[in-house]
Amino acid sequence: MTDSKHTVNFATPRNFIKTFKKDCKETFFPDDPFGKFQHDKTLQKIKKTIQYFIPIFEWLPRYNLNLFRYDVLAGITITSLAIPQGISYAKLADLPPIIGLYSSFVPPLIYTVFGSSNNLAVGTVAACSLLMHETLGAVVSSKDDPTLYLHLVYTSTFFTGIFQTALGFCRLGILVDFLSHSTITGFMGGTAIIISLQQMKGILGLKNFTTRTDVVRVIQAIFHNRNEWKWQSFVAGLVFLCFLQVARYVKPFLVLTMCFLQRQRKPNLFWVSAISPMAVVAVGCLYAYLGHGEQHGIAIVGDLKKGLNPSSIHYLNFDSRYLPATIRAGVVTGLISMVEGIAIGRSFAIVKNEQIDGNKEMIAYGFMNIIGSLTSCYLTTGPFSKTAVNVNSGCKTPMANVVQGFCMMLTLLFLAPIFSYTPLVALAAIIMSAMLGLINYEEMYHLYKVDKFDFAICMAAFFGVSFGSMDIGLLLSVGLSLLRALLYVARPAACKLGRLPNTSLYCDTEQYPETMSLEGILVLQLGSPVYFANCSYIRERILRYINEEDAVTEYRTEHILLDLSGVASIDMSGIDTFIELIRVLKGKHIKLGIVNPRIEVLEKMTLAKFVDVLGKQAFYLSIEEAIQSCRFTMDTSTKEEALGSSKTEDVV
Amino acid sequence: MTDSKHTVNFATPRNFIKTFKKDCKETFFPDDPFGKFQHDKTLQKIKKTIQYFIPIFEWLPRYNLNLFRYDVLAGITITSLAIPQGISYAKLADLPPIIGLYSSFVPPLIYTVFGSSNNLAVGTVAACSLLMHETLGAVVSSKDDPTLYLHLVYTSTFFTGIFQTALGFCRLGILVDFLSHSTITGFMGGTAIIISLQQMKGILGLKNFTTRTDVVRVIQAIFHNRNEWKWQSFVAGLVFLCFLQVARYVKPFLVLTMCFLQRQRKPNLFWVSAISPMAVVAVGCLYAYLGHGEQHGIAIVGDLKKGLNPSSIHYLNFDSRYLPATIRAGVVTGLISMVEGIAIGRSFAIVKNEQIDGNKEMIAYGFMNIIGSLTSCYLTTGPFSKTAVNVNSGCKTPMANVVQGFCMMLTLLFLAPIFSYTPLVALAAIIMSAMLGLINYEEMYHLYKVDKFDFAICMAAFFGVSFGSMDIGLLLSVGLSLLRALLYVARPAACKLGRLPNTSLYCDTEQYPETMSLEGILVLQLGSPVYFANCSYIRERILRYINEEDAVTEYRTEHILLDLSGVASIDMSGIDTFIELIRVLKGKHIKLGIVNPRIEVLEKMTLAKFVDVLGKQAFYLSIEEAIQSCRFTMDTSTKEEALGSSKTEDVV
Repeated sequence: MTDSKHTVNFATPRNFIKTFKKDCKETFFPDDPFGKFQHDKTLQKIKKTIQYFIPIFEWLPRYNLNLFRYDVLAGITITSLAIPQGISYAKLADLPPIIGLYSSFVPPLIYTVFGSSNNLAVGTVAACSLLMHETLGAVVSSKDDPTLYLHLVYTSTFFTGIFQTALGFCRLGILVDFLSHSTITGFMGGTAIIISLQQMKGILGLKNFTTRTDVVRVIQAIFHNRNEWKWQSFVAGLVFLCFLQVARYVKPFLVLTMCFLQRQRKPNLFWVSAISPMAVVAVGCLYAYLGHGEQHGIAIVGDLKKGLNPSSIHYLNFDSRYLPATIRAGVVTGLISMVEGIAIGRSFAIVKNEQIDGNKEMIAYGFMNIIGSLTSCYLTTGPFSKTAVNVNSGCKTPMANVVQGFCMMLTLLFLAPIFSYTPLVALAAIIMSAMLGLINYEEMYHLYKVDKFDFAICMAAFFGVSFGSMDIGLLLSVGLSLLRALLYVARPAACKLGRLPNTSLYCDTEQYPETMSLEGILVLQLGSPVYFANCSYIRERILRYINEEDAVTEYRTEHILLDLSGVASIDMSGIDTFIELIRVLKGKHIKLGIVNPRIEVLEKMTLAKFVDVLGKQAFYLSIEEAIQSCRFTMDTSTKEEALGSSKTEDVV
Repeated sequence: MTDSKHTVNFATPRNFIKTFKKDCKETFFPDDPFGKFQHDKTLQKIKKTIQYFIPIFEWLPRYNLNLFRYDVLAGITITSLAIPQGISYAKLADLPPIIGLYSSFVPPLIYTVFGSSNNLAVGTVAACSLLMHETLGAVVSSKDDPTLYLHLVYTSTFFTGIFQTALGFCRLGILVDFLSHSTITGFMGGTAIIISLQQMKGILGLKNFTTRTDVVRVIQAIFHNRNEWKWQSFVAGLVFLCFLQVARYVKPFLVLTMCFLQRQRKPNLFWVSAISPMAVVAVGCLYAYLGHGEQHGIAIVGDLKKGLNPSSIHYLNFDSRYLPATIRAGVVTGLISMVEGIAIGRSFAIVKNEQIDGNKEMIAYGFMNIIGSLTSCYLTTGPFSKTAVNVNSGCKTPMANVVQGFCMMLTLLFLAPIFSYTPLVALAAIIMSAMLGLINYEEMYHLYKVDKFDFAICMAAFFGVSFGSMDIGLLLSVGLSLLRALLYVARPAACKLGRLPNTSLYCDTEQYPETMSLEGILVLQLGSPVYFANCSYIRERILRYINEEDAVTEYRTEHILLDLSGVASIDMSGIDTFIELIRVLKGKHIKLGIVNPRIEVLEKMTLAKFVDVLGKQAFYLSIEEAIQSCRFTMDTSTKEEALGSSKTEDVV
């Protein structure tokens, strides 16, 4: 009947504990960290386990002076970016600017020990700074009670750390998977829009401004305070912004020019855009100091004390009145900053053909934020701009972060007062310029071309953030993503297969119109787990296929074969549906056959006695075999019918 | 190279609008209602459309006296059940008992017109009555302000109707799919436990009782009021309960006896358990009337006025203070009652080989509840007990509901005052007996045997309802179900394929240990949509397969083939992951091949230029073809290497 002696393997179902352990391992340890050294001896095992959990022990022994040269250069470059960015983003969170500098000293050192990425540069981020201000500002005004506000920021950073560490230890890197690339693109774009608009406060030199973050209110606030507009500030801002934007594009421009002149290939000019923020700050400070800018409408940062991070352990505030807000701020910013950091770390790791571990990164971020919150730092992660500069400057290991920390320490000890002359307008220009680079138009267009639903998810985040709030945008977008995931699950694609002429290949009839129909046999391929959310749909769909088939061909459908090779699992509702289906099909005199069920599916079918109900002979290993068997039955029954009728005739 | 001239079909991607329309159709019209008569003429089409939306026009023209005979019998039987059930469940919702009778008069008539099930008998249900009381009782005490409470019940029933109708018109039957069979089993069981326990109030004749519904509080309340226990009531309750339980089991018992005596097969004794509640009520009424039961500690229902349903249109209360509670009660009870009704209707339809349409049923329930709320009825659906009795009594069409309505009308007009003598203890016994039948032990054990996760979902509902509240139980269980759906999606099963000896079949190596390895070629089968929630897992998993393979075999993996026939769709993140994968594999000198991508997947890959990145030659129609091609490349390169080394030798 068939060309092989193999049959479907109806082995006894595997032990529950065993499969459960396997499933847990797949869910929480998809990278199988211990599989690599399970054959080693105990001492070696302990050493490798420590190395696995604390990556510095892995790379430090192999560290040498040659690598250090690269890391020093990279570390100095990112410090030159860290100073203006630290001050700017602290202003964005409405914190004392020195907190931003503190945050680039301790956390990078912690990350060096626990981080698994060679490329990540640690620092504060714009979106989360704003989000923190938005959430905590609703409970305590940063204007009226700056001390309490600051303490709540520490507390929320502490919760962020606890949350991230807990996720890392629980191996819940899976949560990060649910923030899709489209969501992040839209979220970043929307955030960039509102942060840029908010910088108009600094550019125009406004004193009064809204604390709201949606586009409409911010624009209203800009025009509402028209009498406060200062032209000096505006001109300075415009100049700085132009300089920064030119510096950003100078590299491709110079590259093009040089290639055109054929003098030199690939000039390494990344530093032009990397040090331009520092240049802006320097020029700004000089102007403010020498030209007494403050008297001409150019406000300055002011008040940056010398000295290293003081302890903030006594400032953590667990007052039940503020607890809901601090926990919420901590968890939400923790999640977003983590996703940003891991996504960026992963992108650069791929470029360099390295690997980073999401769960280890989470633990590193967690420790970074816990210890940060105790040493006057606020939320840090791996920001895109800094990391990109770090990679461009040629960093080799996390040692670049140590260099950054060291430079920042020197700055805090000796140079801090100089930066108190930084004009606010310079900071506004720096943030704005950074933000304009975060709106990824090409990606959005690409999404629109390839996948409209992904584009909708992206736009939900984009418009949700710009016209609602950051929470709304994020929730909307994640909600849409989950809806899509559930729709995938609730309405799985099924297709009808036909035979390709002159082969034993069975393909989708819609995709390959040249396939031939099978005269009375309907072959359907299911492509999704079968379970409660889609089982009634699958039943309807199968019955509809039969109706459609009967309407089109002259043959009555006698056999229906379900190719289950794409069905990874099934639950009780799914099996019940198949049992129902057998009953319905019996009423229509159609026989059901199951082709190539996978091990998980077959196990459940055996346990639920479905195999007994249908009979083992209705399970086939391949479509070819199933069809031959069906044809055989059909021929036999036709012959019997013919025989039967001839017999009747005889009797007559 | 291959035995067929067929290649992967790289047709131009289909038009977005077209695929979008198709997807929407699959999502909202999986049963393709208009497909059946798209070839008819206009007039015929209009007629069929009306028949489609208002099913009575379909079956009434074919109705005859023979069918009517059956329906009359069934209708009278279900009325005998409707009277005690109506009164009991109204007491459960703490409503005047007459409301329960009203609710069995109007709604059945409405259902006859719009309902699509021939088996469903309309009436009130225990679980939703209690849930309504729980939700609305939290806002307005049914003891202190019974009138306002009653009006809120009407209002919430009105919202239920609106909600159900809206869902039906929006074709959102898909929502019902997300309440799995396991959830319903657990929910019903938990509800049965708490409702049974609450009946101890009636059985023991207590006056004071808790309004809470969790097991702990209810048991506390029973023992707290020990001084109120009335032995007369308890004895009567026990007698009634025993009678009802015996009547329930009398049928199987008698059947067994008769089969044993071989006198008669299948005696039709369903009526014994069907009319037993009515018998209990009759005996109770007689005892209360003749024996002045009230003086002996047997409380009666009291106060049932003659007359048909009064209008309640002016009682709908849209006061903003109560709106959140009424809407919540309406939506939650609407959803649960709908699921119960549709599930039950579907079960019996399958037994009788008929079809019911979830969306039509929703609209029917919706109209039933909207009109019910305007005519002094409260929430109705298709309860299990009544429907089962209806089917057993031999109903043929929804006409049985008309008969029920007619009988109920007669009762309301002439017999209502008689039932005012019904002892509360009789009602408690009836409810308790009905509830004990709802705890489906066998199903729970079956779930435990077959699928531990389904069992956990069921137990979450069961214990959530019994020890928390009905909302908590339902949320917990649905949450777990969704979590499982998302886990299916986030951690899709992938498996390694090997060739079965002497065939061209490729099967899971774990399932079929006799499969042979393919020497340097790794074939993986993915079995789920590839997208944001699982793409990084899939990447990790594929890389891990390569590591595992390299550790086990002596051959270096040179080719990796991904069988995508089970991958129904892909999104941008998924495609980005594959692009990353190519880059990583290139670093390891491994070539990627794609086998049999489905139309949706190939379209997206073409649009996203993935096909251009990988090259069309790396797409194969079958595993066999792909392996032949890989082998050819491997042979060629080995020869070239050999050639190259010999050349080098020559030069040396």
